[in-house]
Amino acid sequence: MPTTPAPFTAADYRARMARAADAAADAGLAGLLVAPGPDLVHLTGYRPVPTERLTLLVLTPGRDPVLVVPTLEAPDAEQATGAPALTLRDWTDGTDPYAVTAPLLGAQGRFGVSDNAWAMHLIGLQRALPGTSHVSLTEALPMLRAVKDAQELARLEAAGAAADDTYREILKVPFAGREESEVAADLAALLRQSGHSQVDFTVVGSGPNGANPHHEAGDRTILHGDMVVLDFGGLKHGYGSDTTRTVHVGEPSVAEQRVHDVVREAQQAGFAAVRPGVACQEVDRAARAVITEFGYGRNFIHRTGHGIGVTTHEPPYMIEGEEQPLVPGMCFSIEPGIYLPGRFGVRIEDIVTVTEDGGLRFNNTPREMAIVE
Amino acid sequence: MPTTPAPFTAADYRARMARAADAAADAGLAGLLVAPGPDLVHLTGYRPVPTERLTLLVLTPGRDPVLVVPTLEAPDAEQATGAPALTLRDWTDGTDPYAVTAPLLGAQGRFGVSDNAWAMHLIGLQRALPGTSHVSLTEALPMLRAVKDAQELARLEAAGAAADDTYREILKVPFAGREESEVAADLAALLRQSGHSQVDFTVVGSGPNGANPHHEAGDRTILHGDMVVLDFGGLKHGYGSDTTRTVHVGEPSVAEQRVHDVVREAQQAGFAAVRPGVACQEVDRAARAVITEFGYGRNFIHRTGHGIGVTTHEPPYMIEGEEQPLVPGMCFSIEPGIYLPGRFGVRIEDIVTVTEDGGLRFNNTPREMAIVE
Repeated sequence: MPTTPAPFTAADYRARMARAADAAADAGLAGLLVAPGPDLVHLTGYRPVPTERLTLLVLTPGRDPVLVVPTLEAPDAEQATGAPALTLRDWTDGTDPYAVTAPLLGAQGRFGVSDNAWAMHLIGLQRALPGTSHVSLTEALPMLRAVKDAQELARLEAAGAAADDTYREILKVPFAGREESEVAADLAALLRQSGHSQVDFTVVGSGPNGANPHHEAGDRTILHGDMVVLDFGGLKHGYGSDTTRTVHVGEPSVAEQRVHDVVREAQQAGFAAVRPGVACQEVDRAARAVITEFGYGRNFIHRTGHGIGVTTHEPPYMIEGEEQPLVPGMCFSIEPGIYLPGRFGVRIEDIVTVTEDGGLRFNNTPREMAIVE
Repeated sequence: MPTTPAPFTAADYRARMARAADAAADAGLAGLLVAPGPDLVHLTGYRPVPTERLTLLVLTPGRDPVLVVPTLEAPDAEQATGAPALTLRDWTDGTDPYAVTAPLLGAQGRFGVSDNAWAMHLIGLQRALPGTSHVSLTEALPMLRAVKDAQELARLEAAGAAADDTYREILKVPFAGREESEVAADLAALLRQSGHSQVDFTVVGSGPNGANPHHEAGDRTILHGDMVVLDFGGLKHGYGSDTTRTVHVGEPSVAEQRVHDVVREAQQAGFAAVRPGVACQEVDRAARAVITEFGYGRNFIHRTGHGIGVTTHEPPYMIEGEEQPLVPGMCFSIEPGIYLPGRFGVRIEDIVTVTEDGGLRFNNTPREMAIVE
């Protein structure tokens, strides 16, 4: 049995909140407004039940963190691992949560806001404090959660290994004659069996469905001769996995093999571009150049990758225009693809971390096209 | 087998979008900005995979609806039932989605925004169009989804009946000696067995855990003599159920019975207050008055109810300060509770709709305290 990583402590969260407040000050921000979701999990370990009621962590440089919570959520919030490192300020149904929050912020200044904070709450705060302005955390502090520490890297590595185990096992199940959703159910079961506590996606894109990069899995019956995109992941010990391999039911045609080879070469080129100091967009350019060279540029219709951590899509993004330099400890996907409408799609994806010496893959199953039955 | 309701059609969604645009014009709004989630489901039937990429339905009075979508989501969006009633406008990774959206809105005017739209996207639109202003849909058009039509009422009634079936069955399972999470798993299985496609919550709050209204279900072993709050629901045919009963393992004490009687009387008082034209807050006041009269006012720490439809928490809210009059077709919970920290909690909840003649319950299991084993 693999070792369970030591749980994060209140001290870990205290340090993270202090680092975030420092980063806010360095960026000229008056503070950070952190909403439920990955930012709040990262900074406090608190995962409230989703609700329209305002829950907001207020981090202001030089002051102690305050978590604004609905009164009826306060008992849960007190149980969060990071709770000893912050002060709770609760508000009751029927009172104005923005009036409770405003004095914590002050009347002036620019605040970073979690991307996924509710617009309703932002509007409420803008109205309560018309002299303040706001910027999304991804724009203001894109690297807030991007550089992982050793404990986080160990979790992401374990999640990657578990996804690899899932891939090795899925190759043994029958494909031809079964519906995509049945293979997706197998993937979900295997992800759980390999220690994932949460399954986030199990894409099975067979034949023409593979040409839609966000197709999940449907009732199409997989046929002999199909190309099948398998893209799956979830959370293990609170950190994400996300890997894609494209397999073939029986022997591929020459054309199918060629497209697969191009994507594999593109994925390798993106990986080879990874080293500290290189801009994120260079990873995208390296992968895209290969696909474009072979004439499929128009068929690669998404960015090359996204960061991963307590959520499976987060900065840094490997995309044209992203000039952020890579830093050791960053973790992200490299997942070029070619999508031929009406025919098939191919995508190959690994999670990669940046080390002083270049990229290191957390997914290490063969990238050659596997033949399934 | 109960009949499956006829699916919604593109014409249904076209009519809903037209009504929403009219309501926006009546409210003096230049348009509505509808984000993925319940508003978008209600207006288009489209449920995109959650993503940080901008998906936004733009409804402007007098113009055709436009759905802004990421290019790689466009194939899925085209499959939505409401797609024939709108125009898709896609944007590609690396381009600016706000620049694509801005020309659809115009440089001036006040726009209603889905409560749960991402703050990042609102900030992007505010920057692209500094002459516009924004208000949350709950504030601007709280009744947009609140009054249900006949098709929707039939679905909510069916969901309520299915939750009632679940309650009748859960009374037969053993409680004493099992962990809360085991009973919660039974509830989830029974909800699915009764036709729910999605289970949203299965609260099992035994003994002192019942005193935390948002406790879900944990590893506490239920004991003989415990009061147990059971609050469960999900979606059936796309519409929500949500009911609560508080049961007792073995015979209750006189004190437990008394608290339960007070909550039952409060719930009945809230129900009796329902009729067209009465303000939402009167439902809250009626229920709260009973609890306060018996000296438990401080122990009723949440509002009396929330609307329900394609989501299980939406306007109208039964809360002090909500002056919105009740209208036939509105559906909401009535769920007073008393929470005694360290001891136990009691909550009783039905979904109720407003008819010309008063309230009509969609949950009809006995509200008397059931004895379980």
